[in-house]
Amino acid sequence: MIFGLGSVLEKSREYLSTSDHASVVSINLFVALLCACIVIGHLLEEHKWMNESITALAIGLCTGALILLISGGKSSHLLVFSEDLFFIYLLPPIIFNAGFQVKKKQFFRNFMTIMLFAAVGTMISFTIISLGAIEIFKGMNIGSLELGDFLAIGAIFSATDSVCTLQVLHQDETPLLYSLVFGEGVVNDATSVVLFNAVQSFDLSHIDSRTALQLVGNFLYLFVTSTILGIVAGLFSAFLIKKLYFGRHSTDREVAIMMLMAYLSYMFSELFDLSAILTVFFCGIVMSHYTWHNVTSKSRVTTKHTFATLSFVAEIFIFLYVGMDALDIEKWNAISDSPGTSVKVTAILLGLVLVGRAAFVFPLSFLSNLAKKNAHDKIDIRQQVVIWWAGLMRGAVSMALAYNKFTKSGHTQLLGNSIMITSTISVVLFSTVVFGLLTKPLIQLLLPPSTELTRMVSDDALTPKGFMVPFLNGQSSEAELGNNYALPPNTIRMLLTTPTHTVHYYWRKFDNAFMRPVFGGRGFVPVDPGSPTEQSTPLIQ
Amino acid sequence: MIFGLGSVLEKSREYLSTSDHASVVSINLFVALLCACIVIGHLLEEHKWMNESITALAIGLCTGALILLISGGKSSHLLVFSEDLFFIYLLPPIIFNAGFQVKKKQFFRNFMTIMLFAAVGTMISFTIISLGAIEIFKGMNIGSLELGDFLAIGAIFSATDSVCTLQVLHQDETPLLYSLVFGEGVVNDATSVVLFNAVQSFDLSHIDSRTALQLVGNFLYLFVTSTILGIVAGLFSAFLIKKLYFGRHSTDREVAIMMLMAYLSYMFSELFDLSAILTVFFCGIVMSHYTWHNVTSKSRVTTKHTFATLSFVAEIFIFLYVGMDALDIEKWNAISDSPGTSVKVTAILLGLVLVGRAAFVFPLSFLSNLAKKNAHDKIDIRQQVVIWWAGLMRGAVSMALAYNKFTKSGHTQLLGNSIMITSTISVVLFSTVVFGLLTKPLIQLLLPPSTELTRMVSDDALTPKGFMVPFLNGQSSEAELGNNYALPPNTIRMLLTTPTHTVHYYWRKFDNAFMRPVFGGRGFVPVDPGSPTEQSTPLIQ
Repeated sequence: MIFGLGSVLEKSREYLSTSDHASVVSINLFVALLCACIVIGHLLEEHKWMNESITALAIGLCTGALILLISGGKSSHLLVFSEDLFFIYLLPPIIFNAGFQVKKKQFFRNFMTIMLFAAVGTMISFTIISLGAIEIFKGMNIGSLELGDFLAIGAIFSATDSVCTLQVLHQDETPLLYSLVFGEGVVNDATSVVLFNAVQSFDLSHIDSRTALQLVGNFLYLFVTSTILGIVAGLFSAFLIKKLYFGRHSTDREVAIMMLMAYLSYMFSELFDLSAILTVFFCGIVMSHYTWHNVTSKSRVTTKHTFATLSFVAEIFIFLYVGMDALDIEKWNAISDSPGTSVKVTAILLGLVLVGRAAFVFPLSFLSNLAKKNAHDKIDIRQQVVIWWAGLMRGAVSMALAYNKFTKSGHTQLLGNSIMITSTISVVLFSTVVFGLLTKPLIQLLLPPSTELTRMVSDDALTPKGFMVPFLNGQSSEAELGNNYALPPNTIRMLLTTPTHTVHYYWRKFDNAFMRPVFGGRGFVPVDPGSPTEQSTPLIQ
Repeated sequence: MIFGLGSVLEKSREYLSTSDHASVVSINLFVALLCACIVIGHLLEEHKWMNESITALAIGLCTGALILLISGGKSSHLLVFSEDLFFIYLLPPIIFNAGFQVKKKQFFRNFMTIMLFAAVGTMISFTIISLGAIEIFKGMNIGSLELGDFLAIGAIFSATDSVCTLQVLHQDETPLLYSLVFGEGVVNDATSVVLFNAVQSFDLSHIDSRTALQLVGNFLYLFVTSTILGIVAGLFSAFLIKKLYFGRHSTDREVAIMMLMAYLSYMFSELFDLSAILTVFFCGIVMSHYTWHNVTSKSRVTTKHTFATLSFVAEIFIFLYVGMDALDIEKWNAISDSPGTSVKVTAILLGLVLVGRAAFVFPLSFLSNLAKKNAHDKIDIRQQVVIWWAGLMRGAVSMALAYNKFTKSGHTQLLGNSIMITSTISVVLFSTVVFGLLTKPLIQLLLPPSTELTRMVSDDALTPKGFMVPFLNGQSSEAELGNNYALPPNTIRMLLTTPTHTVHYYWRKFDNAFMRPVFGGRGFVPVDPGSPTEQSTPLIQ
């Protein structure tokens, strides 16, 4: 507990390079800005138009402008952050928390629809944007772009950013819509990244049916192996904590091992060239289903809120970063001769994004509705519009993919590259700010509160949100379990008409008979009455 | 919530440098080793000799050896970590948590003794080690060391590392001893670092009384300003959270703002060349006294355990790092001609450390005992031995200061420099492993359990440990407050004989009359019955 030094870094600047001082300054600035974003976001909570993402973006832009002014128009190094920071530290907590807090029942009930939107839909969007870009940009004077570049553009602008919409939708009020938008968002990221990588690594000079088949095979392979790795990692953590029962000695160990195992699943997937996003997402789901129930009540509260907080801070950080980075002067220098072209390209891309998304949301919703017999489960036209709108924003993923693709040959020296970079920034800013600002009013218009009744309220107990149940009374969870999952005889008819419920029923049986006794989970954790953390009487120490 | 990419880093290795792959591999390795340390530490919990630090050090050494073997004796880049990582990311959570979890009443009751040991004692130790090094090393053939180098050696080996001992001592069983060892550890770090910096920056060719006075003045200035900055940061966070009442909307915001403000206090202090360790330590104390009581019960549980977990992981990380770094072959190459000299220097330094510490612990304990009238508050000889022993370990701070001093002119090319680096590593390893292994048996021998009665049990409610009180019944805390702090008339005589209690009494009056109404704290938080997080009835949602 007792180490020291810190100020040496600062004091002994003569021995170290001056980059240390710059990094201290920029960390100070960033942390202070994060605090400002949180406070302002809190104050604007009730505001009709604003949300935390836009606030962070706006603060980032203002700070960037200020730094630019102070540094006299030169590119300030305060703005430069590495991509590593972004993908190794900021992304994992966000995706893991998405899996950890997801309402599993809703997610798996709508699994087929989510996959339809996220996999098939993203493919359609990718195709339309790529073809549109090839057709339109060929006639314009924007440098030499090749087939690979156009396909990359398709992948870059297929990656949605649903944060804004999710902040407005409520999981309890519109569970179907929420789970569709949410689920699509996560899987869409994975699909876009896999598409992007596939386009980069495949030889595009001979496109034939075999190449296309390889692409599909590669996608399925990545999807399945990444998912399995995530599930295995989650189950391993559950087994480890159940067997060793860390809580007996230390809450810290439990919390630490959960965090580290989750992070390890992400990095491990990264190491083997799999889709780390999917891995950590499914690891989160499994951890919330098994591991989370094996730890002490204090650890449950801690992990739930810590994961949510880390994700929250990482999100704000990303928007702040995107805002500040947008004004990096170097990127805008190359296109200063032809500002009109960049504006035109941005407008075209925005149009393609709008069309590309409309082209799959409405047809696929129609298809999905055909397969459903219960009118309540169908996606009505207002909900379709919300789904369409929710996927129009472009965010950090698009930026990162664009940097990766268009800064490879020199720092945005080529005209084509620099136009694509600045256009991506413009699309991200415009879609996040303008579409983002319109989201709250639009949803309030289309889905006024209390139109959609709160179905699935009992779901609460399934997710970490319902942590108070075991916290107060470890035995009641068992009884509630029966209420939720065991199918009483009079619902057999309903069961026959809804096949997803049947799958869910058998999964539940398997879960109760085999999985929970081995990996723990609600109602299957041995309560050790001698352990200090499980004692409930001497709470007032 | 919905970003993605990760695997791009990995996939598109052709565009990026190969360092990305190496960093992914080393992160995987490090996270996996951290998990291993936690699991093994848990399994060895009941073991008589081992503790988590030694486990981590041993695993680090083994891994370092393994990597060395695999890479064929070359310096592997997996081992290289930046100093920034160490001081900007690992140190702040450890020191902040120390302040956050400290038993404030014990700490401030023994404040004078702690300062005596940590400030005066460290000075004495510094003087003895410096003088001893000058005397002994001058006769040996270890390159050209100057006066500044010898003084730096004194500062480097005055920085103790009390982690091992604190893991063995129990705050409840031996409160006096724990608070002395603990408090000395934190302030000792600050003192050593300030001493080191002072020695580096002062012109040592003309040492006179004015220079010495400046040194003392500089030390006092740093101490006072750093402390004030920490207190101001803590109070600001308390005020902000009390005014805005974040919990109304989101637990995440509360937790995020507490973490970010704490970190900001550290970095801010760093920015202004102050002692960041002291700042973040006092920020932690203030936060646990005010801010922590202003947040919702969920946030209380979360922050308490999150800070503890972060500190725990950072500690293990540091020992793992020191263990792996110790085998970096480059450092050992330069002294391969004279291995005997390095061993001799190590032995001499260990001897000086033993003597230097004995030279102040026993005399200062005697002085401290003279000032105390209550026999119960005196430090008996067995406790003095434990205090002496607790400060013999040398850890990460010594390593970092040594790197800072002796790698400036080329990478350990000079014989003197390389000998000092390898000797520091040897002293750190030897003292941590050998002294560390002996600590548990020694303490069990000197202080058998139940010899020292559990005084101050009621203190629990003061620190975050007692969080269950307001959690269950917000009103009881008020009553308990009266029991603990208001001085009933019949203790006036006791009050007159013990001046520290008088200070405490007036502070308590001031705290209740002015500080708590403004900054919140136990019993002074407005309970908003409408807020969802404060409702106590529908806990089973």
